[in-house]
Amino acid sequence: MMETVSTNRAFGGVQGVYRHASAVCAIDMTFSVYVPPHAPGAELPVVWYLSGLTCTHANVTEKGEYRRLCAELGLIFVAPDTSPRGDGVADDPEGAYDFGLGAGFYVDATQQPFATHYHMWSYVTEELPALVAAEFPADMARQSIMGHSMGGHGALTIGLTFPDRFKSVSAFAPIVAPSQVPWGQKALSGYLGDDRTAWRRHDAVALIEDGARIADLLVDQGEADPFLAEQLRPDLLDAACRAAGIPLTLRLQPGYDHSYYTISTFMEDHLRWHSARL
Amino acid sequence: MMETVSTNRAFGGVQGVYRHASAVCAIDMTFSVYVPPHAPGAELPVVWYLSGLTCTHANVTEKGEYRRLCAELGLIFVAPDTSPRGDGVADDPEGAYDFGLGAGFYVDATQQPFATHYHMWSYVTEELPALVAAEFPADMARQSIMGHSMGGHGALTIGLTFPDRFKSVSAFAPIVAPSQVPWGQKALSGYLGDDRTAWRRHDAVALIEDGARIADLLVDQGEADPFLAEQLRPDLLDAACRAAGIPLTLRLQPGYDHSYYTISTFMEDHLRWHSARL
Repeated sequence: MMETVSTNRAFGGVQGVYRHASAVCAIDMTFSVYVPPHAPGAELPVVWYLSGLTCTHANVTEKGEYRRLCAELGLIFVAPDTSPRGDGVADDPEGAYDFGLGAGFYVDATQQPFATHYHMWSYVTEELPALVAAEFPADMARQSIMGHSMGGHGALTIGLTFPDRFKSVSAFAPIVAPSQVPWGQKALSGYLGDDRTAWRRHDAVALIEDGARIADLLVDQGEADPFLAEQLRPDLLDAACRAAGIPLTLRLQPGYDHSYYTISTFMEDHLRWHSARL
Repeated sequence: MMETVSTNRAFGGVQGVYRHASAVCAIDMTFSVYVPPHAPGAELPVVWYLSGLTCTHANVTEKGEYRRLCAELGLIFVAPDTSPRGDGVADDPEGAYDFGLGAGFYVDATQQPFATHYHMWSYVTEELPALVAAEFPADMARQSIMGHSMGGHGALTIGLTFPDRFKSVSAFAPIVAPSQVPWGQKALSGYLGDDRTAWRRHDAVALIEDGARIADLLVDQGEADPFLAEQLRPDLLDAACRAAGIPLTLRLQPGYDHSYYTISTFMEDHLRWHSARL
């Protein structure tokens, strides 16, 4: 059911990489899970980390600097891939980085050729949680979700859709309103078609406008992020949260860019934020 | 003189990657330097990190998890490449990973075709320190050196050769006696020729046997490291240090392997060890 690709001891726990035959994506999927040191029989809270454009599970696994904190706080850390991959999986017609492979945008595609494999919404919200619950010492009553960029979009939209499942939500440099920015418009039209009403369930700002609520929200955004003004637009999230009465802690970080150097710097704050709510 | 390849803000400081025309290697060389946050005009101690086989500056820069500690402790962290690279740089005749590109072994080669570019000893002990002193806010009176595997060999041999320059020396899974193990015998014969008397200055155990002394030494070695018994042989270092009266803190870490998952786990202990001696 689940194949172990690799395991490495780290910070007293085990960093694993696993592969399984995904039913909803109709292809093998790879993901990583860090299990911190724990007492026999213990069940631990789970932090989901959704990655950004071009990434696999490996980017945050190698560069995210989360294991020290997860070991200290007793958190399982799950990092899925960002799209289906493999023989027959459609890609952007021109191989662009912002659509297709590495760019699943955490939606269930309805448009061909993507509808065959691109079911990242169901994968991340249903199939992979069931696998994690079955295979790891996870307390699924205590989950939180975070992500970066496209994965911040995923974390926000999933967190807003399942406010009872996720005790807390945070993001690094998220795409907060894909309906209003080029990356998102390309992806949502390509995966979901041109009917924009279908887009609103995959747009954090639209979800909030349509009534979705969560207890609070932490977002870090680098001020030197080259995608800030055109693609990320934290101002739109700030306005939506203010109108909805959602307490948003939006931290603009001077000099920080869109890279894992930023993520690793602020990972500790995010994991402590989640741990305090789990 | 020195070209900036990239800079990223991280943990309040700057992680940079730089390139320069190396005179001693007769080719462009790339290295990384992390400069932590500091007061204007401050001069900071320098930790040298020498990487292992197949690595460039990038491996530890991305996976080493040193920046948080360097920011806290006020340490500059320098990561050189492991060999010259580029047009005309000789490689292992069969492209093996353990000799030639990515495997300079921190010696000045005397054997052709390697003697043309492979001068990593002079590069790491002379040319790059001069460049670091000139270009960064470094207090060169306070330096320490550490490394991993082949880079642990480099750190030990350089530290033992310059006990007045380096306030402290440590290593992860070092090759402690290259004259006695396959990796080292291949490299030292290939770079230095078959006269084994020339090898002793590049063999930590031989250096200690020949009278080199340092104040103390920290080594972490994973017990699940697949190279432990054949290539690394911490037992030989332990015996040499005992005979010489060098206090060696040799920590065998159960379950840990040869990867950066091990290095990142124990990086904090090593940087605190160095900081206490700087």
